[in-house]
Amino acid sequence: MESSTILPLSQLSLSLPRPNRSRARPFRPWTQWTSQPTRIRCQKMYVPGFGEASPEAKAAKNLHNFFTYVAVKIVTAQLESYNPEAYEELMEFLSRHSLNDGDKFCANLMRESPRHKSLALRILEVRSAYCKNDFEWDNLKRLAFKMVDKSNTSLMRDYIRETSHLEHEK
Amino acid sequence: MESSTILPLSQLSLSLPRPNRSRARPFRPWTQWTSQPTRIRCQKMYVPGFGEASPEAKAAKNLHNFFTYVAVKIVTAQLESYNPEAYEELMEFLSRHSLNDGDKFCANLMRESPRHKSLALRILEVRSAYCKNDFEWDNLKRLAFKMVDKSNTSLMRDYIRETSHLEHEK
Repeated sequence: MESSTILPLSQLSLSLPRPNRSRARPFRPWTQWTSQPTRIRCQKMYVPGFGEASPEAKAAKNLHNFFTYVAVKIVTAQLESYNPEAYEELMEFLSRHSLNDGDKFCANLMRESPRHKSLALRILEVRSAYCKNDFEWDNLKRLAFKMVDKSNTSLMRDYIRETSHLEHEK
Repeated sequence: MESSTILPLSQLSLSLPRPNRSRARPFRPWTQWTSQPTRIRCQKMYVPGFGEASPEAKAAKNLHNFFTYVAVKIVTAQLESYNPEAYEELMEFLSRHSLNDGDKFCANLMRESPRHKSLALRILEVRSAYCKNDFEWDNLKRLAFKMVDKSNTSLMRDYIRETSHLEHEK
């Protein structure tokens, strides 16, 4: 963390001690991660700790692993009904390999046997189709907005309830 | 996994053994998670294993924790420049508490001391502002699409390179 920040003061209304301006460091715009040359217009908060990548790239990587997980779920559900033998083989492979790294899982599955290779190719196709056609991106955004509001309200309400209860007991 | 699936055959061109139709189970549409009464029109793949929730809700929950992580990063970077004492306090708290569950982290931070409470409220405000204003949702989608294409191509290319090399050696 080598730089100062662009502080959206309108959003941060909490009273914190006065900043020590003599410690302020050179301006480093958040746009360093984007290709837009909008140094001056950028009003975004500076997010450190992502190196050359962006928070969006980090989130996309996590979603990518999640899509592989979903694709495996879809394929196993399909196989369970239509092809019990392949289902058993995939379940057995799943018991031995972690799905945390989706690409590594698929790479290993491909190399297990020719039958496993077919399953791996199917998972690759399903995750691409799921990501592009089935996954509801707008819904994801809507749910995330709703979740942050709900969680913030709930955390503050619980805290107030707890502290007013304590004061009541005094 | 109690049901059969809606199989987008156009997307799944891989030759798998013929389905055993006698094992097919009752139709259960993917739309059970959405509010749309489009049983017949739904062409989405059935995703099992999310209970009453949806994959979108699961992904939103993960993003929610990620936004808390980002908000903590933003606030610590701000404090490092402007308020070294609060920075030290937050870093010390971070060394003792996991950020895996963002809401739990904030709840604990609120209850640590009145000064920590101010930091917690600031983190709540920043994560909401970040999620709604700064995070580039379109970019996330674009990067995820790009990632799935790139990973699929790369996995298949590596496999073909490896196997053709083996055949060449024979």
